[in-house]
Amino acid sequence: MPNSIDFRPVILAGGSGTRFWPRSRRARAKQVLALDGERSMIQQTVERLKPLAALEKTWVVTNEFLAHEIADQLAGVPRHQIIEEPVARNTAPACGLAAFLIERENPEAVLGVFPSDHVIADEPRFLKALQKGIAMAAAGDNIIVLGIEPTRPETGYGYIETGEDDGAQAALRVRRFTEKPNLNRAQEFVASGNYYWNSGMFLWSAKTLANAVREHLPETAPLLEKIASCFGKPEFEQVFRELYPKCENISVDYAVLEPRSAKGEHASHLYCVPAEFAWNDLGSWASLYEYQMETRLRGDGDGNVAESDGHLTIEAGNNYIYSPKKFVALVGVENLVIVDTEDALLIAHRDHSQDVGKVVKELGLSGRDELI
Amino acid sequence: MPNSIDFRPVILAGGSGTRFWPRSRRARAKQVLALDGERSMIQQTVERLKPLAALEKTWVVTNEFLAHEIADQLAGVPRHQIIEEPVARNTAPACGLAAFLIERENPEAVLGVFPSDHVIADEPRFLKALQKGIAMAAAGDNIIVLGIEPTRPETGYGYIETGEDDGAQAALRVRRFTEKPNLNRAQEFVASGNYYWNSGMFLWSAKTLANAVREHLPETAPLLEKIASCFGKPEFEQVFRELYPKCENISVDYAVLEPRSAKGEHASHLYCVPAEFAWNDLGSWASLYEYQMETRLRGDGDGNVAESDGHLTIEAGNNYIYSPKKFVALVGVENLVIVDTEDALLIAHRDHSQDVGKVVKELGLSGRDELI
Repeated sequence: MPNSIDFRPVILAGGSGTRFWPRSRRARAKQVLALDGERSMIQQTVERLKPLAALEKTWVVTNEFLAHEIADQLAGVPRHQIIEEPVARNTAPACGLAAFLIERENPEAVLGVFPSDHVIADEPRFLKALQKGIAMAAAGDNIIVLGIEPTRPETGYGYIETGEDDGAQAALRVRRFTEKPNLNRAQEFVASGNYYWNSGMFLWSAKTLANAVREHLPETAPLLEKIASCFGKPEFEQVFRELYPKCENISVDYAVLEPRSAKGEHASHLYCVPAEFAWNDLGSWASLYEYQMETRLRGDGDGNVAESDGHLTIEAGNNYIYSPKKFVALVGVENLVIVDTEDALLIAHRDHSQDVGKVVKELGLSGRDELI
Repeated sequence: MPNSIDFRPVILAGGSGTRFWPRSRRARAKQVLALDGERSMIQQTVERLKPLAALEKTWVVTNEFLAHEIADQLAGVPRHQIIEEPVARNTAPACGLAAFLIERENPEAVLGVFPSDHVIADEPRFLKALQKGIAMAAAGDNIIVLGIEPTRPETGYGYIETGEDDGAQAALRVRRFTEKPNLNRAQEFVASGNYYWNSGMFLWSAKTLANAVREHLPETAPLLEKIASCFGKPEFEQVFRELYPKCENISVDYAVLEPRSAKGEHASHLYCVPAEFAWNDLGSWASLYEYQMETRLRGDGDGNVAESDGHLTIEAGNNYIYSPKKFVALVGVENLVIVDTEDALLIAHRDHSQDVGKVVKELGLSGRDELI
């Protein structure tokens, strides 16, 4: 990627992440936890981008519960570039606001949107794919999405249907986005060979994204532009708090990418850069377990993954254990998720780990706010 | 029972009790834990006997790991009546030593042997059965065992086959003792109606038991008599430490009761007093769970028994939870035993709770003595 490109990572870190309860809490959501390794998910995200972007170029969009912790964890990121949404409005307003803010500084800057809570195993390959995408985004009115080669018919992800190879750049034109297909369709997608998982990582110039928001969200765009115009001024917080809740609550995929893909693959300027790195969105304790087994970070011979002060298993296999300060013994149990924290203990069947969010909901209803 | 009877409870509290790990440890065996209720098992045992025996009449046989804790818990029991075995030698030497010690004070005293770690739900009925047995033991050369009406074909218990009713006293003559039968035989026993579980609670006069030990353990009896003769003297501890390890390592059932029953039911003077109280030997976490469900002490509508700082279950049933300082959430799991302590966490399938002792063994082999 040419040195002249002004690359600006925008890290989306507003998720509440109840699915990693009891480790994740309101003020300790998934993105600020070290779920995999020594550093938190958001620290890993920023660290990975360092070869392509200095910390001063990095922006974060998060919420008031997490901003303080994130500022602590990302000491090099300028505090005013850590934006605190007054309410959650999904990814379109977050990306749009970043686009308008950065457009005011440099319309040609390439803005990269990155989720703050995914894991990527092969950083050199990640950077290679990213550099390719950045160059394409800088070269014109292109929108680039990083696509992950699907390894299973996952029904919880969005899929990208790709068309012909754009020879020179080795990217693929995007035909269509499909959110969370049923199992039959997911199986067809995986078998067909030209579908990719939507990684949630996008590249576009600030002006391309800003114009796309103006085009596809004509009511929300003026609100965001007004907020952006107050940035750095005394009235910023008040305007932000007043106008942001009025923005449409919609994802950037639905708001911009899907309508854009409907234009047809040649007119849309939408490209997919296939990524060849191991990737996982860590959507649940079960995905963390699977990712750690795949990358052989902590698995023992019986398929138990343990982060604890020692563990012992007797006729017990395929369990995930998190209990950093305590010895754990498992006897005759399988496929469990066991998470031990100071004040709460979770035991879930791995197949039910999607239901952990319900626990948090119940805790709210029963007034145990100290555990949320 | 006549006031003239000098009744002396002898509480056997030497067990190491690894089956309730991680709550039970070397210095906190099952008998000193409050597994069921506010008071420890041994406190409950002594408390139950109070209407029939003052604390000064009570003796305890235990080991050096537990003696201190037991002395703390049983403040009214004279410290010198809490005997510390230098090594474990099963129940025959423990009962024999108590018999020789008490025989020296009063040969006519009725000695009641009681395990320190069983639960009994209906104390008035327990006391009624006990009084009947004490009167029979005081009346002659009789040996009385409290029998429990079997409610299931348990293969882990000893069974008592009974013969004819000894009309006047409403006790049954004992025909035979059978240790841990296989499932087929256990089923026959339960169906036949004249078999009882051996509760481990025995009544006999001091001289009857002392003479039985002299008769059936001719090599061990002189060692125990020598130890008893030094009781209260400066050389006691040294003699105890020297001779006790030379005693036979055998249960009182095998050493005395089975050979005695072989004499035939009329010559043996062996009687079974059928007890009509709910009883459980709490042999494992699973038995504790079952006992608490039966007595409806803590069960919720889904069959979960919990002692915790709150708990929440989503599609989870028939679990046992002990986690007194922590909130516990269960999602999609069944038939688990979950025990959380300061430094160790156990998750076991209820059907495997007999294997918890193996964990303790493994911990010993791997040098984690602080957890034993």
